[in-house]
This record gives sequence, C-alpha cells and structure tokens, in this order.
Amino acid sequence: MEEQVHIASAFDRDLEKIQSQIMKMGGLVEDSIRQAAKSLQTRDQTLAQEVRDADKAIDILEAQINEDAARMIALRAPTAVDLRMILSVMKISGNLERIGDYAKNMAKRTSVLSQMPPISDSTGAIRRMARLAEEMLKDSLDAYIRRDTELAADVIARDEELDQMYNALFREFLTYMLEDPRNITACMHLHFIAKNVERMGDHCTSMAEQVTYLVTGAHPDEPRPKADETSVRTQE
Amino acid sequence: MEEQVHIASAFDRDLEKIQSQIMKMGGLVEDSIRQAAKSLQTRDQTLAQEVRDADKAIDILEAQINEDAARMIALRAPTAVDLRMILSVMKISGNLERIGDYAKNMAKRTSVLSQMPPISDSTGAIRRMARLAEEMLKDSLDAYIRRDTELAADVIARDEELDQMYNALFREFLTYMLEDPRNITACMHLHFIAKNVERMGDHCTSMAEQVTYLVTGAHPDEPRPKADETSVRTQE
Repeated sequence: MEEQVHIASAFDRDLEKIQSQIMKMGGLVEDSIRQAAKSLQTRDQTLAQEVRDADKAIDILEAQINEDAARMIALRAPTAVDLRMILSVMKISGNLERIGDYAKNMAKRTSVLSQMPPISDSTGAIRRMARLAEEMLKDSLDAYIRRDTELAADVIARDEELDQMYNALFREFLTYMLEDPRNITACMHLHFIAKNVERMGDHCTSMAEQVTYLVTGAHPDEPRPKADETSVRTQE
Repeated sequence: MEEQVHIASAFDRDLEKIQSQIMKMGGLVEDSIRQAAKSLQTRDQTLAQEVRDADKAIDILEAQINEDAARMIALRAPTAVDLRMILSVMKISGNLERIGDYAKNMAKRTSVLSQMPPISDSTGAIRRMARLAEEMLKDSLDAYIRRDTELAADVIARDEELDQMYNALFREFLTYMLEDPRNITACMHLHFIAKNVERMGDHCTSMAEQVTYLVTGAHPDEPRPKADETSVRTQE
C-alpha cells in the first residue's frame, strides 16, 4: 500500500485483525489440501477423517470473518478503497471455504477408494495436482497481503497448467475404463476428485483477480485462460 | 416484514431497486436452466449457444448488484437488520451467478454429446432434475422476497429429493458403462451434468438458508439433509 501513507487508524487495526484471520483460514485450507491428497495416496483413513473434521473449523472461521467484516462496515462506514478492501475479505473467505469443501469431499472418497484396486499411479498424479493447487493458494494469499499484482498474474497463469494436468488425467481415466470395466467405479470417483482439484485452481484464480481489483479498482479485462477442454472434446 | 413498520426511506427505495435486480437475475438464471436442459434433450445446438451467450448478461448483473450493494453500504451506513439485508443480497447474487455457470457448463456439453449415441432416457432424467432445480430456485427467491421461512424450509427439504435423483442416475450410468464400453465417454459427460444440477440444488438451499438468517438472525442449526451417497458407496 505504498500510495496510501496515512496514520494507523482504528480502521487499519480492525483490518489487520481480519486479515490475520484470513491468513489463519488460508493455513488451515492449505493443510487440508495437502493431507487430503496424502491420505488418498497412502490410503490413510485416519488422516482422511482428520481432514473431514477440520472442515468445521474452517467453516466457523468463515462465519466469523463475515461477521467481523459486517461489524466493521456498520461501525466505520468505510468508503471507496476501504470499503473495497472489506468486500474483498468477504469474497476471499468465501473462496477459501469452497476450497476447504473440495478437500473435505476428496477425503470423503478416500475410504471408498481404499476398497478398490488402485488405478495405476493416478492418486500420485492427483497429489501432484493438489501440490500445485496448494502453491497457487499460498501465492494468491501472499499476493493479497502484499498487494502484489505480479504474483497474482503468475497465479492466474499457473491455473492453465493445472487445467492441463486435469485434461491429461481425464483422458487417462477414459483409457483405463475402456481397458477394463472393473476400473469404471474407481475411475468415476477419481475423476470427481481430479475435477475438484481443478476447481480449487479456479478459486485461487478468483482470489488473485481480487488482488488486481483491489490495486487497480477494475477486474482484469482479459478473459483468463481456460483450458479444461473435456467439455468440448469427443473420445480419443 | 410485518414487524418492521417504518416509513419508506431512501434506504427502502434503494433496497427495493436492488431486490428487483435480484429478481431479474433470478429470471435469467431460471431461463438458462430450462433451456440448457431442453437443448441437451433435443440436441439443439443453437439453443445451447444462446444459453452460453446469456451467461454474460448474468455475470454483468451480478457485478452490478455487488457494486450497488457496496454503494448502499457506503452511502447509508446501515446497521443491524438493514446491513444483514444488504449482505444477503450479495450472497444471493453470488449463488445465482454460480447456478448460471452450471447451466452454461451444461450447455457447453450439448454439442459434444450430440455426436454420441444417446444413453437410454438419461437426458430426459436430467431434464426432470433440472425442472426440480428450477422450481427450487423460483421458490427460494419467492421465499426471499416475502421473507417466508416456511417456503424456505420446503426448498431445503426438496434438496434431498434432487440428491436422490442424482444418486439413482449415478448408479444407472455405472450400469450403462459396465454393459458397453462405448457408453463410457457419453456417461462421463452426462454424470458431470447431473452432478452440476445436483449442485444447483445446494445453491438454492443456501439461498433458502439466507431467508431463515434474515428473518431469525441465525443460520439454521440443523445440519441439512445430505443425500448424495455416491461418495461413500461402492459399486453395486
């Protein structure tokens, strides 16, 4: 916030408090992604259950952040940049909550997938996707706290990579299902999980776009690269 | 708003304007659901393209509503019930935007599915699911405008029905894929669509919960019925 040299006010203190809540929430969501992917690959049902339990704490934090933001608006009646800042907090906590939900849904499928034969290294591939999503999340939050539009642009660009990993996996799943019908059920679950990781990337992109909005006051004009091609592709 | 007998203020006029925007947005989203499901069943690619184009208008309306809401907060500095009302407008426009996105994604898959052999009456079943989702949407918006918590509870209850329709379809798709591997690709796309319609119901439920929150000041305590069982079910 180089342009804004003003004395720390009650507003700034409130904002700092709410932003530290966002970072705390982000940390919990990062843990969830990492552990959900790990439990899927190692078939660790105890860890999967921990991820499912942790989602409640994330939901509670989101509700808290929204209440604090509402209280701030009511109390301080902020305008222009300050208002934009609080609204972005609410948007970002919503994105984080959704990503947490995806991690929880991933963990839910760990127990059912543990009962099925593994499909090649697909859980390893999903874990690599999850690692990329986790990095995108970390960087979008850093970009947010530092108001770093370059880092935000970098996050948006990386979403394409995640989409391509998803596309490759989608094709693989089709192949495994065609090869052996006994793979079908597991592949349906794995495809569901891969799609959810791909969606995590969309939410990171949305957070990164909030950074641009905060700094420039406008949403990025360019339509962001969208590389999930499975919706327009026939069998190959 | 029986409890609140106060003279129409500038705030009320602003709120009325923004609520009519919400209803307009809701109408567009209802049209999109209906037409996306119709284009899927009738293999009407022109209609599918119309749905995809219409999504831009929905996105623009959401941005407009959020801006108007932010302007209202900044200008009127509302507190308590009034603030809660404006925050709910923002939440609901977010839900509508997501439902519109699901309809668009459904329409995107119409062209690829048109090139594949039909899978029994599955597009008919999806259309029935979409009709239920459309009714839930209409009723959740009516419940919102009339602050009708009974109607809102009814919407929440109907979500279970939609989940059950999805579960039944999921099982059907597994069967068709096992029967004939040539069905696999089409079933993957159809399953994706069915899941998205099921998610529309989740967003209607979230809107209905907003109504309860607006009227009572508290989110519904009861965990809502959740009947997508596919995440914990093995093959049958």
